Parts: sequence; C-alpha cells; structure tokens
Amino acid sequence: MLEKTTRMNYLYDFYQSLLTPKQRSYMSLYYLDDYSLGEIAEEYEVSRQAVYDNIKRTEAMLEEYEEKLLLFQKFQERQKLIKKLREIAARNQLQDEEFFKTIEALEKLE
Amino acid sequence: MLEKTTRMNYLYDFYQSLLTPKQRSYMSLYYLDDYSLGEIAEEYEVSRQAVYDNIKRTEAMLEEYEEKLLLFQKFQERQKLIKKLREIAARNQLQDEEFFKTIEALEKLE
Repeated sequence: MLEKTTRMNYLYDFYQSLLTPKQRSYMSLYYLDDYSLGEIAEEYEVSRQAVYDNIKRTEAMLEEYEEKLLLFQKFQERQKLIKKLREIAARNQLQDEEFFKTIEALEKLE
Repeated sequence: MLEKTTRMNYLYDFYQSLLTPKQRSYMSLYYLDDYSLGEIAEEYEVSRQAVYDNIKRTEAMLEEYEEKLLLFQKFQERQKLIKKLREIAARNQLQDEEFFKTIEALEKLE
C-alpha cells in the first residue's frame, strides 16, 4: 500500500495538469493530505462511493498516461544516470563547481 | 514556416501517443513525409477541408499538451545542460569513458 501511495504521488505529480479540477482536489486530499474517503465525501457533500469511483478512475487515467508517456519511468532512469555522473566526478576528483551546479539544475528540471 | 514545421515535428514526437490513429496518420504524412493536404485527402478519400480541419485541431491539441506538460521546453533546457557538462569535462580534461557513455545515455532518454 505504501508503495502504491508513493507511485500515485509521483504519477499525480507528473500528470496532474491533465486532470480536471475536481480530480485534482480529490487526489490531492486523498494522497497528499491523507484524508479518508469519508472525509472527502463530507467536505464535498457527495457520497463516499462517488469519491471512491472518481479516485479509482483517476488512478486508472494516471496509469494510462504513464503507459503512453513514461514520464515517471524516464525520471527514475535519469536519476540513476545523474547519480552515476556524481560518482564518476568523485572518483576522478573533479573539483569544478560549475559541474555540480549543472548537475543540480538537471535534477531540478524533472 | 520552417520553424513551425520543426516545432510541430518535436511536439508530435513528444505527444503522438496521446493522439488518435487518424490524427497520427494525417500529422505524420503532412509533417514528416511532406504530403500536401490534397494528397492526404486523396489517400483517405475525404475532402481537403476535412484534412485541413483535422490537422489544425491536432496542432492546437499538441500546443495545449505542451502548455500543460512542457516536455519540449524541458527537453531543450536539458540539452543545454548536457552540452555544458561536456564542455566542463573537456576543460577539466576528464578522460573517464564512462562519463561520456552516461552522458549519451542521458541524451537518448528524451
């Protein structure tokens, strides 16, 4: 479950701009703020089932986007390669400060 | 016009998986294979106007996806940073072959 939550957090992060405002609200309350389905239902004055269905559909949409665009997968692969660049710099005792600034800029671009 | 074609080629490359098969066919014939609207219309036995409308709509969709996900913009920024890493390696006379392999892997990930 924790693993699923982490994955959904990432997928939400990458694809939230493709969701509707309501989908974003439910997902963000459920996954980021750790609200229960019942609490979200109360907040929006809808049934618990309606919230559940909406979140399930949104999760499926996020997985579909990931299948098509692979942003999360590429992000993970990029992180590994960036880590390797840091290791290579360390073992070659590279001191150039601009190198580390550039690596950080690359990491922030995700 | 050439600049627009280049941009559309990139946007198509990044977001084609989000298009319908018909949108993909028209866009790829028009932008990659340099067919005219008339030639595509003939191939698909539809009016030239129908092809034109479809392509215009698809172009607008691609620009909307780019507005939301910024994949092309981030790609360009990443290319600049990777170029800078190569320059830093050169001026520090870094010889480590794994560095260049890792940089190439990063470039290929786009």
